[in-house]
Amino acid sequence: MEKKAIKNKVDKKAKKALNLNVKQDNQTDLFCANIPNISKGGKNMDTNKRLTSRAKDYSQWYLDVIAAADLADNSPVRGCMVIKPNGYAIWEKMQSILDAMFKATGVENAYFPLFIPVSFLSREAEHVEGFATECAVVTHHRLEKDSSGKLVPTGKLEEPLIVRPTSETIMYEMYAKWINSYRDLPLLLNQWANMVRWEMRTRPFLRTTEFLWQEGHTAHATREEADARARQMLEVYRVFAEEYLAMPVIKGQKSESEKFAGAVHSYTIEALMQDGKALQSGTSHFLGQNFSRPFKVKFLDQSGEEQFVWQTSWGVSTRLIGGLIMTHSDDKGLVIPPKLAPTPVVIIPIWASAEEHKKVLPVVEKLAGEIRGLGYAAQIDDRDLRPGPKFFEWEKKGVPIRIEIGSKDLVKQSVVMVRRDTGEKQEVGITGAAAFVKTLLDRIQADLFAKALKFRDENIREVETYEEFKQVLQEKGGFLSAPWCLNPACEARIKEETKATTRCIPFDQRKETGKCVICGGKSEGRALFAKAY
Amino acid sequence: MEKKAIKNKVDKKAKKALNLNVKQDNQTDLFCANIPNISKGGKNMDTNKRLTSRAKDYSQWYLDVIAAADLADNSPVRGCMVIKPNGYAIWEKMQSILDAMFKATGVENAYFPLFIPVSFLSREAEHVEGFATECAVVTHHRLEKDSSGKLVPTGKLEEPLIVRPTSETIMYEMYAKWINSYRDLPLLLNQWANMVRWEMRTRPFLRTTEFLWQEGHTAHATREEADARARQMLEVYRVFAEEYLAMPVIKGQKSESEKFAGAVHSYTIEALMQDGKALQSGTSHFLGQNFSRPFKVKFLDQSGEEQFVWQTSWGVSTRLIGGLIMTHSDDKGLVIPPKLAPTPVVIIPIWASAEEHKKVLPVVEKLAGEIRGLGYAAQIDDRDLRPGPKFFEWEKKGVPIRIEIGSKDLVKQSVVMVRRDTGEKQEVGITGAAAFVKTLLDRIQADLFAKALKFRDENIREVETYEEFKQVLQEKGGFLSAPWCLNPACEARIKEETKATTRCIPFDQRKETGKCVICGGKSEGRALFAKAY
Repeated sequence: MEKKAIKNKVDKKAKKALNLNVKQDNQTDLFCANIPNISKGGKNMDTNKRLTSRAKDYSQWYLDVIAAADLADNSPVRGCMVIKPNGYAIWEKMQSILDAMFKATGVENAYFPLFIPVSFLSREAEHVEGFATECAVVTHHRLEKDSSGKLVPTGKLEEPLIVRPTSETIMYEMYAKWINSYRDLPLLLNQWANMVRWEMRTRPFLRTTEFLWQEGHTAHATREEADARARQMLEVYRVFAEEYLAMPVIKGQKSESEKFAGAVHSYTIEALMQDGKALQSGTSHFLGQNFSRPFKVKFLDQSGEEQFVWQTSWGVSTRLIGGLIMTHSDDKGLVIPPKLAPTPVVIIPIWASAEEHKKVLPVVEKLAGEIRGLGYAAQIDDRDLRPGPKFFEWEKKGVPIRIEIGSKDLVKQSVVMVRRDTGEKQEVGITGAAAFVKTLLDRIQADLFAKALKFRDENIREVETYEEFKQVLQEKGGFLSAPWCLNPACEARIKEETKATTRCIPFDQRKETGKCVICGGKSEGRALFAKAY
Repeated sequence: MEKKAIKNKVDKKAKKALNLNVKQDNQTDLFCANIPNISKGGKNMDTNKRLTSRAKDYSQWYLDVIAAADLADNSPVRGCMVIKPNGYAIWEKMQSILDAMFKATGVENAYFPLFIPVSFLSREAEHVEGFATECAVVTHHRLEKDSSGKLVPTGKLEEPLIVRPTSETIMYEMYAKWINSYRDLPLLLNQWANMVRWEMRTRPFLRTTEFLWQEGHTAHATREEADARARQMLEVYRVFAEEYLAMPVIKGQKSESEKFAGAVHSYTIEALMQDGKALQSGTSHFLGQNFSRPFKVKFLDQSGEEQFVWQTSWGVSTRLIGGLIMTHSDDKGLVIPPKLAPTPVVIIPIWASAEEHKKVLPVVEKLAGEIRGLGYAAQIDDRDLRPGPKFFEWEKKGVPIRIEIGSKDLVKQSVVMVRRDTGEKQEVGITGAAAFVKTLLDRIQADLFAKALKFRDENIREVETYEEFKQVLQEKGGFLSAPWCLNPACEARIKEETKATTRCIPFDQRKETGKCVICGGKSEGRALFAKAY
């Protein structure tokens, strides 16, 4: 339990040092009390409210974006958020794309229990250390009124249950039952589920007590096949992050001290947010036989010998929505990459009289129909409001393309298209407008990635000495690529003194013999360091 | 709490009386220990194992079907099952169809916390009575080793949390925050989520401690609109049950004693299983202002006056998979209606030599491609096994159409198609085979519904006296349509003496003045009674 305890302490210091607007809460505090209340669908949202700028307060800006786009809200339960329809629609998009990608690799979905007996957790020593200090414990199965009329827990369980923080143990108990022969392998399962980790400091989407994720768990006959699967799923995550989220990521291996509790190796994709902090965006673990041994997941191989299986687990979560927000959004609000936008296009009719309205609306509806025919969910905003507040609202909600059609446009037989990401306006002939929407959405998707990639690449800096390391970190942030001897003591010193952690040892790096940035000992390559969410 | 306690007692008696194979468990027992262990994908399933017949032991037959089709398994957590890929794939089909149906009525998805503060539950008096006696209570947020090295709960919460058994309270606390004006109404939300009810006697899919469901929760400006929405969603459920599950249902209103804890009215769809017992398959509740008052969900109406909203909630769960199994399956195993079959067609190549295999396989693959082109997920079973065990396996798994292609068929340019539901075989010309698959799947879907409807209608019997009631119930089971005065005392007596409960007061019934089957008092119509799951 030592490990986690230290980690929390450091995080707290790190956040204090950065003067972030994070509550130093105790367990009954809510996590984001500074999200203003806004009502559903923005119907009576204060359209004049400007967001805090990134330059002024990045942390508050993040919360403002979430509030302005109506993605999530506080809940009365400590550390838990409510994902509102606008936020959940993005998660649904993510789920459907990832789910198809998993299935294309032969993975099937299943569902395992929410509860895990405490004794299961204990079977893998590092695993229990990683999770015991932050889990919800179910101890009773009834409530009854006491003499004062207050409801109190009764019906004590013989063995407490914890609410799953991750499902290795409960799943592998079943795997041991299902796997008997090499013919039962590989077993490739995934589940979409809610998890609970009793985090002390929470932040919407990035770190919440309850979160939604998927967890894949596979079992294989050989070490090589399992390790290859762990890397394959990391590649699935990279493709998803870069091609859908338009968020460039660096693939690499976690250091020993940063790996998953119970893994042999953890692989990760690391992204860079606009404030120069890293976001671990997905991880895939080669578990070796660390779980198959205590859970007795064995099979008879082709020569009839009993072997323990080799395993992997891998997951991404609603945290990706936090990554999406912080990669692309700006001081006007949310920016959603077109491929993940629940509403990629909004069409706003503009009229000054009932007569004009009558003329404009059929044109708007025809165009919406054409765009929908191409497979894009176009929305029409025909509310009885002035155009200005409508523009402002859709901007805050991150809809990639806004189309304006007024009676002047009808005369010219054109429409005005406005890109959310750049603000660029252009007149487009009405006959080719639907086709141009497709072109423009593809262009926005590509441009968002290119912009994020440029920012990321400009913010990876090679440093050779610890002095340089500290200076660059303080002045510029971003990723620091530094020679490291792999000694955990050097890594721990950096973390303690600078709050930067090893994000990964990138797969893609040149062979290079150098001197560890801390101890001067021999290094075979570089690790990527950064302050991180 | 009296209500639930009585209910459990009656259930226990009912099951004993029926001599069902249900464990009289205590809280640490597992729920379906009689499901044999079978391994994944049936790869090494004992293909010679026959199912218990329905006539011999209906209850064991149900568990056998689940095991043979590899839908679910026991878990080591009391009352919780593991939904295996074959079972989960059916749930995914159900989800995607229902989700589209909900969205077509204007409903959006969101996600609310898993945990509910105990104080919330208490705010609606009937609601707390209904759920307090069977809920998982989280009391601590850490585990630490005691002096003997055993992990014990620490970090006691100031207020215990319960794991949601249903989400009215936690959702409406948020609704109070989001709804201010009539412009914010209606609010139409749904969530797909896991629920926990600490049931004492559980049964896979039909009643488990944890289950998956959707719960819709709407808020409206008027009583009429809310009640209409509750009825509208019940109609969505009816359409889904009849047109997709091919399971005929009767729509009606629950009696006062059977309604949802906290509702003004509960509407239900009731189906009849093959053993003559009813299955409540979906419910939709008109909540009136029962929750909006204690949760202060208020709005300013168009004249500027403050009003409480009118609400509904409605849900269906993985219980529908139990309904699917018990409506259509037979002594050979599972029967899945085509529209919900993850694999509607399996093609089995038949060969005696490597040479034959080489000839047959391209034909099989071509046909599979054509069928997939029509939108049906055809699977090819090319495993190196004899055809007999393959036929047997796919039969148990309920795949609607099996296609056999051997070298003799190639000569005749035909294939053999076998219907899972009737066993009927027919030769079909190979060129028209894909098109015929579509015809046949539609026919199977229609025939399954017609067969179930006939069975259901033959098992609704009007009875006029209590003697007749008891005799028909004992000899034939099924639905009993009986005049009832609406007095809960009469209903309670029937339940106590016969184990039959009021399933609903059907919407669709003739006006009729009669005499209550129990007390002889005046009745205005009939209620439907049955023994039920």
